[in-house]
Amino acid sequence: MEELNKQLDFVIELDRLKGVYRQALVKSDDNRFENSAEHSWHITLTAQIFHQYAVENVDITRVMSMLLIHDIVEIDAGDMFAFSDQKDLAEQEEKEITAATRIFGLLPEKQFQHYKQIWLEFENAETNDARFAKAMDRILPLLQNMRNEGGSWARHNVSKSQVISRNNYLEGLAPKLWLYACEQIDIAVDKGWLRNE
Amino acid sequence: MEELNKQLDFVIELDRLKGVYRQALVKSDDNRFENSAEHSWHITLTAQIFHQYAVENVDITRVMSMLLIHDIVEIDAGDMFAFSDQKDLAEQEEKEITAATRIFGLLPEKQFQHYKQIWLEFENAETNDARFAKAMDRILPLLQNMRNEGGSWARHNVSKSQVISRNNYLEGLAPKLWLYACEQIDIAVDKGWLRNE
Repeated sequence: MEELNKQLDFVIELDRLKGVYRQALVKSDDNRFENSAEHSWHITLTAQIFHQYAVENVDITRVMSMLLIHDIVEIDAGDMFAFSDQKDLAEQEEKEITAATRIFGLLPEKQFQHYKQIWLEFENAETNDARFAKAMDRILPLLQNMRNEGGSWARHNVSKSQVISRNNYLEGLAPKLWLYACEQIDIAVDKGWLRNE
Repeated sequence: MEELNKQLDFVIELDRLKGVYRQALVKSDDNRFENSAEHSWHITLTAQIFHQYAVENVDITRVMSMLLIHDIVEIDAGDMFAFSDQKDLAEQEEKEITAATRIFGLLPEKQFQHYKQIWLEFENAETNDARFAKAMDRILPLLQNMRNEGGSWARHNVSKSQVISRNNYLEGLAPKLWLYACEQIDIAVDKGWLRNE
């Protein structure tokens, strides 16, 4: 029963991710802020839908696992806007590592090691699986902003080059999606939703 | 590009599930109602955590796919409380079948057939994968209600026998979780959160 009790504690702790809000807006729900739990659902399913565009070998089950757990650290560390300054992002990274140890540490040892490892793999973005997962985490806000008059880009005065560099995991890994993203970014510049610099 | 455009339409349509609210409350976020998108994330990850308790063969990747998409029909059909009366539930079922055709029908033909088929498999609950997925969809509200003074059970005057019958997929499939659920149900009766009939 001790193992089950640990797993139950973790499952209940997950509830808190529903109270961590991001910069993206949910257009279909009165433009309220999106939380990290529903975001995680959306990109996990998006990865499955777009899997066919990966030109390198990608294990979709591992990608899905990564995407389900990639934001759990925000329960302790909070969400930080992707285009914050580098010093803040470096501090955030330290908070997230501490959070991963505490939160995945609620689980029995074997699951703790498993989830912490795949979370680190996602963060390091060196494997195909992690890079494809990252690409999904990044293309969805682009789709959302394009349907919301620039959304968080426009509100935070983000530049074209920032969005290009954030989405460039797609370039080698899923060139059709990369092409689409580049086209959308150009449209966003034309509409004045992204700074052209 | 036509195929990608269809997939993009589907991915954007998914956003609307974030505006479909259920009877469960999110305790960690001021007890607001839970939406079906974040709920889908929570049970998909819960299924992965509890997979070890399945005593029959369960393909966890298929279970995860089912749980990610099981509530998408609610974009059109809305959420109906699990313990509503039988006539309302039958009407709901018809609405959901129409919704599945429209929403999964946004996808290219091959993905449309794939997702509609696994959605139907989930609904029919005849395979091990579907039954394990259903069990996860049902045990999580139990965990949430137990940590929230009876939650939706108490508000809707639900009985012990209703909750037992709703959770009995666990009995043959994951007996350790079934035992745990039965213990929790007895505690809920003692506390006056469930009617004892």
